[in-house]
Amino acid sequence: MALIYLDHQSATPLHPRVKEAMITYLETVFGNPSSDHQVGQPAAQALDKARKQTAALINAQPQEIVFTSGGTEANNTALKGVAIGLREKGRHIIASNIEHKSVLNSLRTLRLLDYQVTSLDVDSYGLVDPGAVEKAIQPDTILISIMLANNEIGTLEPIADIARIAQKRRIILHTDAVAAVGNIPVDVQELGVNLLSLAANQFYGPQGAGALYVRRGTPVWPLLDGGVQENKRRAGTENMVGIVGLGEAAEVAQKELPERLPRLGALKERLAQGLLARIPEIRINGHPTQCLPNLLSVSVEYIEGESLMLMLDDEGIIVATRSACASGSLRASHVLIGTGLDFATAQGTLVFTLGRDNTQADVDRVLEVMPGVVQTLRDMSPLYKKAGK
Amino acid sequence: MALIYLDHQSATPLHPRVKEAMITYLETVFGNPSSDHQVGQPAAQALDKARKQTAALINAQPQEIVFTSGGTEANNTALKGVAIGLREKGRHIIASNIEHKSVLNSLRTLRLLDYQVTSLDVDSYGLVDPGAVEKAIQPDTILISIMLANNEIGTLEPIADIARIAQKRRIILHTDAVAAVGNIPVDVQELGVNLLSLAANQFYGPQGAGALYVRRGTPVWPLLDGGVQENKRRAGTENMVGIVGLGEAAEVAQKELPERLPRLGALKERLAQGLLARIPEIRINGHPTQCLPNLLSVSVEYIEGESLMLMLDDEGIIVATRSACASGSLRASHVLIGTGLDFATAQGTLVFTLGRDNTQADVDRVLEVMPGVVQTLRDMSPLYKKAGK
Repeated sequence: MALIYLDHQSATPLHPRVKEAMITYLETVFGNPSSDHQVGQPAAQALDKARKQTAALINAQPQEIVFTSGGTEANNTALKGVAIGLREKGRHIIASNIEHKSVLNSLRTLRLLDYQVTSLDVDSYGLVDPGAVEKAIQPDTILISIMLANNEIGTLEPIADIARIAQKRRIILHTDAVAAVGNIPVDVQELGVNLLSLAANQFYGPQGAGALYVRRGTPVWPLLDGGVQENKRRAGTENMVGIVGLGEAAEVAQKELPERLPRLGALKERLAQGLLARIPEIRINGHPTQCLPNLLSVSVEYIEGESLMLMLDDEGIIVATRSACASGSLRASHVLIGTGLDFATAQGTLVFTLGRDNTQADVDRVLEVMPGVVQTLRDMSPLYKKAGK
Repeated sequence: MALIYLDHQSATPLHPRVKEAMITYLETVFGNPSSDHQVGQPAAQALDKARKQTAALINAQPQEIVFTSGGTEANNTALKGVAIGLREKGRHIIASNIEHKSVLNSLRTLRLLDYQVTSLDVDSYGLVDPGAVEKAIQPDTILISIMLANNEIGTLEPIADIARIAQKRRIILHTDAVAAVGNIPVDVQELGVNLLSLAANQFYGPQGAGALYVRRGTPVWPLLDGGVQENKRRAGTENMVGIVGLGEAAEVAQKELPERLPRLGALKERLAQGLLARIPEIRINGHPTQCLPNLLSVSVEYIEGESLMLMLDDEGIIVATRSACASGSLRASHVLIGTGLDFATAQGTLVFTLGRDNTQADVDRVLEVMPGVVQTLRDMSPLYKKAGK
């Protein structure tokens, strides 16, 4: 049975060009880019090339790219790096309550180190109110961190509006753009952010490779202390195979996005409308228009999402129940709860993330299979019976 | 011209078995190990296998292995993780003054956060005195960090002796074993440490993959906050290709070390004796017997190491001038200065690190070429002439 893979947020298959670039590198180069001798130089050149490719994807300068081990490290570096870098200036940070766990748990650690955090509520679509950001600013605020696209519900936050507020008050703005970069056009100049996180595994590049965009002049203390790599902003011998893959994935994404965006947007719309028509009481999460074109989050009452996911898995349809990073813990998603969804409904959530290989036939197969699976699970649910359905 | 590669400390070529494992993985698996569906499971299995392979190399339990992006992250995690984890117990840390920059600069950051550090001097061989460690302990000491093998001079520190002191006083002991693991037998039970750092790129595995051994019960706060990966000790989607390479490299190292150790030791001895016999005023750094069998550090008076390295590079002989991580900054090595070497002589330092492919012919070629290169450089040196040579 051919699989229908609709969980690109958890992992994207490597793009054939990325795979080729990584294997070619593996087979031909092994030097340390910090070595001045002839074995080190091809590695240094590959590092330069990947830096230019990555910068181009987000309209940054190459020297503003700091390679990291992924989105989580990029987010940790942004938050902890600014916190330590500006500790003499202030100790107050603003973030939304639906940020990725790598942001929220970094803030938890900073609280232990005597930083104060204002956590902003979102509306039922998951939108942050720029006015609320402005109101939360204190004289000692050093950083605002709001994500560009939410990784569970797909809502796009008004980052450019928030940036205007941050700039006026001369406060550093970080955006976690991990779910966005490579899936929608992202331009750091248009956004007006100082710091932006991205990860290769969200756009057909390898796991374990990401970057933090650091606008020139932004004070970020390294999270990884040590040698002088990455212009002293991130120590440690570089994950060269991963970085080569990230660079190639960035170049490919820039090239393919114009074609991919409308096509995946149409598939998502077909999936959303089809599910709404076929399944009673299904709910679409996130903002209807200000959202990622390839992510659809739905909640189904009276059903446990994990069971639904596993039954679809048996049918060869691969989806996620919630953010992959939160799997392994069976709590309800803080993002869905943040939008005001009740705990029971939040438990019955599936996240479909479409990718470059998906077709209309894939969507139609989901629409064919899912109503029956949902009904089977509902028939087994005491809560469903109790509700008199 | 076939290269003679003697800089295995900066980068090791991938072992053919490691390369094969990484390429096979790249070509067949892409899932996220945190995903419970059928695409995620092969990744989860590969992660388990690599964890077992890595644990076996150092005689640890698989659940005591925390994968990191390399040695630098492992060291940062150990120091900052214990510092934050035990911040209520105390804020004093002990380390030697010849630790790797990833340890020393982590301590610099911790000082900013109101931790206190005692920096221990070493003797002319680079040895830490266990008695000095004991004397430095205060009631609020929470961590001792002493490296197993120095990455610039090869000296092996008396970790088991220091561990007995630490255990007696119930203080956590971390050892940076990055230069040691895979090159000499390392057994966490014999060493008696709580935390140990290792990196795949030191033993024919990929760059960007390492691990921190965390003895069960050791309180280490995550450096990378976020998801529940690595049993909540290191968040972020795993660098699967790198981890698969690390695991394979660990298994291969365990198998090949018994043959490799005496062979490389003999080559190193031939190189050391040959250089001493042929080059006046050459000095061997580090301990003569308590040392890595594959690393030879020499200092040559009146010469700048970078020039020597580049002239040997022209002859197809690849060596390092100092720790690769410190390249890019032309200061004298803190390790050599720590052993009491004067600045001028420290500048004239070469580090040879032998690897599994090196032969006696490689060593003999170095012995043939190097005296002439040294003499050429000395003839150009005003200092050498001034000294009346």
